[in-house]
Amino acid sequence: MTTRPNVLWIMADQLRFDYLSCAGHPHLHTPHIDALAARGVRFTNAYVQSPVCGPSRMSAYTGRYVRSHGSTWNGMPLRVGEPTLGDHLREVGARAVLVGKTHMTADAEGMAWLGIDPESEIGVRVSECGFEPFERDDGLHPDSPRQNWSAYDDYLVAQGYVSENPWEDFANSGLDADGELLSAWLLKHSRLAANVPEEHSETAYMTDRAMDFMREAQSDGRPWVCHLSYIKPHWPYIVPAPYHDMYDESHILPPVRSGAERETDHPLLRAYHEARVCKSFSRDHVREHVIPAYMGLIKQLDDNLGRLFAWMDEQGMSENTIIAFTSDHGDYMGDHWMGDKDFYHEMAVKVPLIIADPRPEAEGTRGLVSDALVEMIDLAPTFMAAIGCEAKPHVIEGRDLTPILHGSGGFSRRYVISEHDYHWSDMARSLNQPQEDAHTVMIFDGRWKYIRCEGYRPVLFDLETDPDELTDLGASQAVDPVAVRARMEAALLDWARRHHTRITATPTVLARQKKAAETGILIGFWDEKEYEEVTGKPFDSLTPVGRP
Amino acid sequence: MTTRPNVLWIMADQLRFDYLSCAGHPHLHTPHIDALAARGVRFTNAYVQSPVCGPSRMSAYTGRYVRSHGSTWNGMPLRVGEPTLGDHLREVGARAVLVGKTHMTADAEGMAWLGIDPESEIGVRVSECGFEPFERDDGLHPDSPRQNWSAYDDYLVAQGYVSENPWEDFANSGLDADGELLSAWLLKHSRLAANVPEEHSETAYMTDRAMDFMREAQSDGRPWVCHLSYIKPHWPYIVPAPYHDMYDESHILPPVRSGAERETDHPLLRAYHEARVCKSFSRDHVREHVIPAYMGLIKQLDDNLGRLFAWMDEQGMSENTIIAFTSDHGDYMGDHWMGDKDFYHEMAVKVPLIIADPRPEAEGTRGLVSDALVEMIDLAPTFMAAIGCEAKPHVIEGRDLTPILHGSGGFSRRYVISEHDYHWSDMARSLNQPQEDAHTVMIFDGRWKYIRCEGYRPVLFDLETDPDELTDLGASQAVDPVAVRARMEAALLDWARRHHTRITATPTVLARQKKAAETGILIGFWDEKEYEEVTGKPFDSLTPVGRP
Repeated sequence: MTTRPNVLWIMADQLRFDYLSCAGHPHLHTPHIDALAARGVRFTNAYVQSPVCGPSRMSAYTGRYVRSHGSTWNGMPLRVGEPTLGDHLREVGARAVLVGKTHMTADAEGMAWLGIDPESEIGVRVSECGFEPFERDDGLHPDSPRQNWSAYDDYLVAQGYVSENPWEDFANSGLDADGELLSAWLLKHSRLAANVPEEHSETAYMTDRAMDFMREAQSDGRPWVCHLSYIKPHWPYIVPAPYHDMYDESHILPPVRSGAERETDHPLLRAYHEARVCKSFSRDHVREHVIPAYMGLIKQLDDNLGRLFAWMDEQGMSENTIIAFTSDHGDYMGDHWMGDKDFYHEMAVKVPLIIADPRPEAEGTRGLVSDALVEMIDLAPTFMAAIGCEAKPHVIEGRDLTPILHGSGGFSRRYVISEHDYHWSDMARSLNQPQEDAHTVMIFDGRWKYIRCEGYRPVLFDLETDPDELTDLGASQAVDPVAVRARMEAALLDWARRHHTRITATPTVLARQKKAAETGILIGFWDEKEYEEVTGKPFDSLTPVGRP
Repeated sequence: MTTRPNVLWIMADQLRFDYLSCAGHPHLHTPHIDALAARGVRFTNAYVQSPVCGPSRMSAYTGRYVRSHGSTWNGMPLRVGEPTLGDHLREVGARAVLVGKTHMTADAEGMAWLGIDPESEIGVRVSECGFEPFERDDGLHPDSPRQNWSAYDDYLVAQGYVSENPWEDFANSGLDADGELLSAWLLKHSRLAANVPEEHSETAYMTDRAMDFMREAQSDGRPWVCHLSYIKPHWPYIVPAPYHDMYDESHILPPVRSGAERETDHPLLRAYHEARVCKSFSRDHVREHVIPAYMGLIKQLDDNLGRLFAWMDEQGMSENTIIAFTSDHGDYMGDHWMGDKDFYHEMAVKVPLIIADPRPEAEGTRGLVSDALVEMIDLAPTFMAAIGCEAKPHVIEGRDLTPILHGSGGFSRRYVISEHDYHWSDMARSLNQPQEDAHTVMIFDGRWKYIRCEGYRPVLFDLETDPDELTDLGASQAVDPVAVRARMEAALLDWARRHHTRITATPTVLARQKKAAETGILIGFWDEKEYEEVTGKPFDSLTPVGRP
């Protein structure tokens, strides 16, 4: 193998950290993902920078915090000029290729301002978050008028699955015993088999497309990072046979929640509890329908990854490809009386992360389980280092994980950060929270998880004594919580005061500034003698060529 | 006059707030600036967002804090895609025109990345901080190899002042009794007459150029904001006759400083005191040479403004032109044992600000002296409002001053912020401070000025009991300072946690998100009945057109 490997960066969507057998799930067996962990490093404390798709992914694809890139919510365009992983890779002749979902919204206004044609090569990249879009598919086509017809829709039609919205009618609906079509947007239909054979499902299709890309890349020859980004197990929760009835009520773990949690006096938490999706997932019958489908989707994903990894082995690609597997956030599934994601309990903000590095330097860490505090933004610099990009501390806020992968030591992080902008939400509406203040931020140091809630008291959990996060110490007057809250506020300020936008401080610019500071500015010299003493150079009294 | 006035935005460079007769200087008479104040509002608490040219100006021209636009130091390019005042004005058909200095450095790398030709119309604007460059001249051409030949150099040559560096040899040098050319880069030459007649000085030239623009604009017809941006009284400190000997030692005010200040235990303040420019300006003989020249430069500027205002009256322009007068920062001139600027005592961070608004709504405030806390970033939204731009709270961080100008009430600000990135400096080198941590930030609430110094204890002044800022309470254990420090840390966190980069949250984007949140996402509905109860609409079970 060469010293410059390729990277296959697999991302599931809405996959909890604990729904894998290698992470301890007792009923869900994911042997292919487990095998990846056995030949790589599995991280047990990997956190996303926002517990929702869009901002989490924009952080992943830029290596920067949400507060830095500014795309704080789904559909908030990533501004033109925000540097992406793809931009850095292209500088060294490597490709950043997308197969699947990004949740990117293009900054049409910014492009128009700068005269960038969205259809041009640069415009396409800017619109696709820096990726070369081999296949872009965000899923989520709930009905025809808002349908964003995708290549997967074309594929379904070509296979004979003809409809105005094949994504919805086949891949995300089921048939009842009478052959009636029932949409999986309604949770009670989650346990039906999807109206499409497994081999034509979106998960199988995207796996095939990744193979298509890798085949093509072999002849292209340039090194690459391929982002294989699955839509599932994100809702609509429905999975093709045979996965739809592999799991039932007997495989569902009891919800992580307590009666006391419902009695919280925290206005924002109460607003969450009152939101439709949280009320819905707090019902047992919803969990009993959704969780088996969710587990089936993960099982299906694992089987597809098994197929992909076997194919890569056959092609001789495995020995030269770093494989990373992760998710953009988790799913509450009724834990803590909540549904979907959007807050900071472990099942929402912590994600699975496995990186298998085939290079010999990683021999000593195969099968390692690392409890280091890591962030999703660490992946971009890790991939950049593998591909041979220069480090860019003025842009990249994540930290290169290579020291962990190669067991060489030297990686450290004191805390992880995650942010959420809920201006769009039921919670903001019910609380009448001003748009600017509908914002929360989590800081977690491995023990204490502190959640600053603009306009309300903070939320605080001690994961050492309360690993299930059932006891909110945000208002506790006990010594530890009081001290921790002050310490966390200080740490947040320390983080917030850093340069997050000084992205033009390139080595070239800094060198120019250093030179200017040393030689360019003559301010403060009294006379020639002082100038010569300080600088060691003669002061050149300039002679005009002529004067009137 | 129309309801859509033009704006003449005059900026001096390095002009202290207190070197004007309207601000109380006992020896320096500035009748023309005073007259402007008499027909407008004079602000006595106007603060810049950084006590140094480049970042202060980038804040002025974007209406955004330094932490937001990221151009933290001179020569740090303003990133491509950072929205400027000019961009907003152009949206409503108005012009933003530059005559003079911006201290802008173009983001060549960013432009290259986005395929923007620096010579194209958009490229020029991006390179000129959003302005249409009628005349760009940053001054500061210290020697030939680094000379940026300017139109003013051409002008001097055309007038017969021929040299390899006319800016230096004529406008910024003097002749001694023997006719020897002596550079004003050396402070001992400050009291020589500049080697150019007043009418060909840079200040006079730039005044003429503003008239040229306004003449041209009359036929153009579009409304405009013209930024007339003088290089002086910034160093090199030298002024043409007769201004060079209008002032002498008898007009110099005693330095604002105390022996105790020199004994500070604060490492950063000690490093400032040891910096060359501070040591230099702490010497009486330096002050005695420089301050008379500085005063002469201001007097010359005032006379040129008198000439300009009289011409505008003759042209009938005054009644339709808002005139703002300010500076990008001040000058220590030896106060507090410091020289130049770069820190937060009043003479460095507070600037003169006068706005004369000819509109009838401002009749009631003519001659008003306002002690409201205002920031340089307030000018952009004030001008935008006058020209008829929509408010852009997702981009503009300053606050429209129109309520003060029109006496209508409703303006408020709890504190002003200023920042400084000293990574380039003598202080950073002597302290061995890492580049990322060479950063200070000031927050001032009108009484307490709190300066957070990364890596060191804070500095704190109580301007109510210590208006000269001689007593640093940063380490005081008295009740008030301890409480104030905690309050200021909290206020800084409150400021820092705000959205500073969410600039794509346009009204269009927010409306789309609101619609998506209300109608687009079907997550959490159990069945058709629940959907219909919640939404009041029937759930459309979709019918596929065909299936295999």
